[in-house]
Amino acid sequence: MEYPSKLIEEAVNQVSKLPGIGKKTALRLVLHLIKQNEQTTFALTEALNNLRSKIRFCTHCHNISDTEVCSICNSHKRDKNIICVVEDTKDVMAIENTAQYTGLYHVLGGVISPMNGVGPADLKIEALVKRLDNRAEVKEVILALSPTMEGDTTAFYINKRIKDLSVKVSVIARGVPVGGDLEYADEITLGRSILSRTLFN
Amino acid sequence: MEYPSKLIEEAVNQVSKLPGIGKKTALRLVLHLIKQNEQTTFALTEALNNLRSKIRFCTHCHNISDTEVCSICNSHKRDKNIICVVEDTKDVMAIENTAQYTGLYHVLGGVISPMNGVGPADLKIEALVKRLDNRAEVKEVILALSPTMEGDTTAFYINKRIKDLSVKVSVIARGVPVGGDLEYADEITLGRSILSRTLFN
Repeated sequence: MEYPSKLIEEAVNQVSKLPGIGKKTALRLVLHLIKQNEQTTFALTEALNNLRSKIRFCTHCHNISDTEVCSICNSHKRDKNIICVVEDTKDVMAIENTAQYTGLYHVLGGVISPMNGVGPADLKIEALVKRLDNRAEVKEVILALSPTMEGDTTAFYINKRIKDLSVKVSVIARGVPVGGDLEYADEITLGRSILSRTLFN
Repeated sequence: MEYPSKLIEEAVNQVSKLPGIGKKTALRLVLHLIKQNEQTTFALTEALNNLRSKIRFCTHCHNISDTEVCSICNSHKRDKNIICVVEDTKDVMAIENTAQYTGLYHVLGGVISPMNGVGPADLKIEALVKRLDNRAEVKEVILALSPTMEGDTTAFYINKRIKDLSVKVSVIARGVPVGGDLEYADEITLGRSILSRTLFN
């Protein structure tokens, strides 16, 4: 597509590098910014620059944090006996939103995925092992990874790595989603929900 | 939603101000930027800052331009006898893509929309009248505005403003879209396509 200005073209190229944003959406966003006052654009770019240059990760759980140790790891209210292993920050936020979990986290920063060139060494798995070695108070590790091929592989690998330590390893339950219609559940999920049935109180 | 970092929160707030981007998409984009190297973010923000601070508009047609007079107004190949009036830059790009038009443009910068507080004075309508006054060579003005209430109102207003000047005023054809199934055309479009029928060669 011919752009009326090199500035537009460069901005569209940069914006369309973001995931899920094509050239057409990028052009719409860029033209929107031109219509707003300059301050709108500068506030946006400053926030992104600040984020990228100042972002830090908690030295304990490797979650994104403003401080050296994040607020969860630092809290006296959290149960230090349980560590929940997740793929990334979004998963921590999702689990925190449930208000069902009061333990600590360990953020891997991804899952093992040979297709994308991500191996165990690229993730914070050794850091987890070290953390378990150093902290005798940890009694349980919950593997809360996505129920996908990559998530299962990663869970399998972590379990192999830590099963000799005196710590219980559990995984989050898989079954039919609450509120979902049984008729529309896929057969693997439904099959597993039958195999993993629990006692009716 | 609780964010793990103030930097994330501020970035998400700024990104979610863009049209069509909610908090969840903004978070996804922001976390994507964190995973990339710093240069990715800085290239993006620099392109946006450059765009917003250096952007200029052609003094003739008011389209976005890198120079005082845009490449279309400056071109010797364009037919100076016709001016096509459009709402914004995206419409110029769309018409240029058809390769069916060789005249000049006039970009209004919007359409009359009392609901959004946009009146005739907010648009480049007087600039168009002045342009027609000064340039006797213009023989025809094509109103290429969207077939909506606002577009029609704007076309009606412009026609009233320039009908006393010795210039032909036309509007782009309305009818069933090429490649569209007649069955699915709405009744207003179909009705108008019958009223505005043209001779079969």
